[in-house]
Amino acid sequence: MKIDGKHFRTIWVDDDGWTVGIIDQTKLPHAFETRGLKSASDAAYAIKEMLVRGAPLIGATAAYGICLALREDASDENLEAASNMLLATRPTAVNLRWAIDEMLHTVRNLPRKKRVIAAYARAAEICDEDVEMCRMIGVHGLKLIKELARSKKGKPLNVLTHCNAGWLATVDWGTATSPLYQAHEAGIPIHVWVDETRPRNQGAALTAYELGHEEIPHTIIADNAGGHLMQRGEVDLVITGTDRTAANGDVANKIGTYLKALAAADNEIPFYVALPHTTIDWTLQNGFEIPIEERGAEEVTQMTGRTSEGEVITVDIAAPGSAAANPAFDVSPARLVTGLITERGLCEASLDGLLGLYPEMIDDE
Amino acid sequence: MKIDGKHFRTIWVDDDGWTVGIIDQTKLPHAFETRGLKSASDAAYAIKEMLVRGAPLIGATAAYGICLALREDASDENLEAASNMLLATRPTAVNLRWAIDEMLHTVRNLPRKKRVIAAYARAAEICDEDVEMCRMIGVHGLKLIKELARSKKGKPLNVLTHCNAGWLATVDWGTATSPLYQAHEAGIPIHVWVDETRPRNQGAALTAYELGHEEIPHTIIADNAGGHLMQRGEVDLVITGTDRTAANGDVANKIGTYLKALAAADNEIPFYVALPHTTIDWTLQNGFEIPIEERGAEEVTQMTGRTSEGEVITVDIAAPGSAAANPAFDVSPARLVTGLITERGLCEASLDGLLGLYPEMIDDE
Repeated sequence: MKIDGKHFRTIWVDDDGWTVGIIDQTKLPHAFETRGLKSASDAAYAIKEMLVRGAPLIGATAAYGICLALREDASDENLEAASNMLLATRPTAVNLRWAIDEMLHTVRNLPRKKRVIAAYARAAEICDEDVEMCRMIGVHGLKLIKELARSKKGKPLNVLTHCNAGWLATVDWGTATSPLYQAHEAGIPIHVWVDETRPRNQGAALTAYELGHEEIPHTIIADNAGGHLMQRGEVDLVITGTDRTAANGDVANKIGTYLKALAAADNEIPFYVALPHTTIDWTLQNGFEIPIEERGAEEVTQMTGRTSEGEVITVDIAAPGSAAANPAFDVSPARLVTGLITERGLCEASLDGLLGLYPEMIDDE
Repeated sequence: MKIDGKHFRTIWVDDDGWTVGIIDQTKLPHAFETRGLKSASDAAYAIKEMLVRGAPLIGATAAYGICLALREDASDENLEAASNMLLATRPTAVNLRWAIDEMLHTVRNLPRKKRVIAAYARAAEICDEDVEMCRMIGVHGLKLIKELARSKKGKPLNVLTHCNAGWLATVDWGTATSPLYQAHEAGIPIHVWVDETRPRNQGAALTAYELGHEEIPHTIIADNAGGHLMQRGEVDLVITGTDRTAANGDVANKIGTYLKALAAADNEIPFYVALPHTTIDWTLQNGFEIPIEERGAEEVTQMTGRTSEGEVITVDIAAPGSAAANPAFDVSPARLVTGLITERGLCEASLDGLLGLYPEMIDDE
């Protein structure tokens, strides 16, 4: 998608043919800065410190991390060490494991000399596949939006989203935002309520930034406000992303998603979750088995912003000496999810629903 | 309650016998500063700009605002003008209207010369009554806590609260916090989850500050985290305050309270609302008639904090150019409220429940 009118992906290979370029998302929305990753450690650091974030982009970055590791040392030992280092960066998104498994599968039986080229090729494919999956999520989500927009009789459809499941969380298009971008392109009037998404403010910092650069009308709200807006009829549809979907349709997503799912159910507002199949963890019977990342307390007690002079600084916002806790994700049970939007279409948030779209996952035993 | 070991109320008359002293709560937790209100305009400004906040304290400040108005000009005309000015400061808390009505009732039929003394006497009474009501809320809430603590077998009872319904929101003791302070005094181990409460962060700034100075164990969390903690069994009880309670038991409280009420109901966790009777609006059949204050967008897009050098500054935290909306309260329907804790005891959140405690409000017609 576009920044200042210029098209970007979130990850690319530089002109030198091997350095991996990313946008340093910790600097957004205050500054647009790119970085070059030159080693597997660089890739691990970028994931762990959230220079890149969002389940699909974490997967893509890990894939390129394997490429960078093989460039340094194409041995099995180094492949294993790099895989473990990358896997340990963040626990919740399953795309990380999926992408590393794909890379291992690609290079494992190749002679060492051929591994680097094959790895870069597969990583590029993973990125292209992600773009295509996200585009298709938009194609299917657009049908839903068109249907809901009909009852608005020309007034904007109000869509609420939480965190950033936008193009910055993927390689392009985004998951939750892909239907929004495609609706906007199709001329359907939409307005997006953007949950701020404390503590890291990915909504106010990233989703609002994205939507602004695509000129989609939007309004930032405190995470506390969504329920009230739903009670007052100001929300027609909720779409979020997910970092891991269990086989039963439970979804782990950014902390606070569960509260919006409850409010949507209480107000009979459709609550959809957009995801590529790489986010599904078929090994988990329910979402409460998903490991939930605990992050540092300073993300709660501090806030980064820019001063009136344009300087970006971090300030303490809490009572001095008070402790803080920072669980980064929560689980919305499938019963609260109206449906899933995948690259293959919409389905019920259930094992049957998912198997209907992914029949190849039916266990033949 | 105490700040650095010294006892304070939130509002008092200075040694000169007429200046009204308050704590400038916009400066907390970064600095403890008091201010002297010398006119009705000063009082209105203090309420509107939230130097004082919390439904009971808003009422007490308005009462003293009438005193200050009468000191300047004890005429009926000025009394009416000052009442209207004070009433217009904030729309949601009903204690404001209640306190002004009390003051009008006190002075209306007095000769002008006697009005000032009578007004100061009634305002002082309103404050003392508020302290006593809050103390009694604690006495009744303590029984509930004792009962719930029994099943914890010595482990701390985990109580979640939203916003600041602490002593800083009242004259002393607080509403939601009064049972907590009394439980702590009684030696019952408690731990408080403090919702940050964006956009103004009254939880992280005020509730955590209060609890810290009373040495009650507590942990600040993002507003998004409460549902997750409830799902994981980390919350035993929710207690919040309310800015206005409708006759049917619906409660208006700080934005985001509704989301916690939903999560408590979904996880079968008791959700109690603490209030003095001055917060009940008997004229409203349901909470959705309560006017909800819309505040400035800058409260969402900016954040105030202290730098590492101790300077308090405001920074922009959102994507430049994005709009923001800021509804300040929401309504939790009575069906989600386990019970109300008033100065007269606990009751069901319903008209019958309230009339059981306040039989004098039964309409004889």
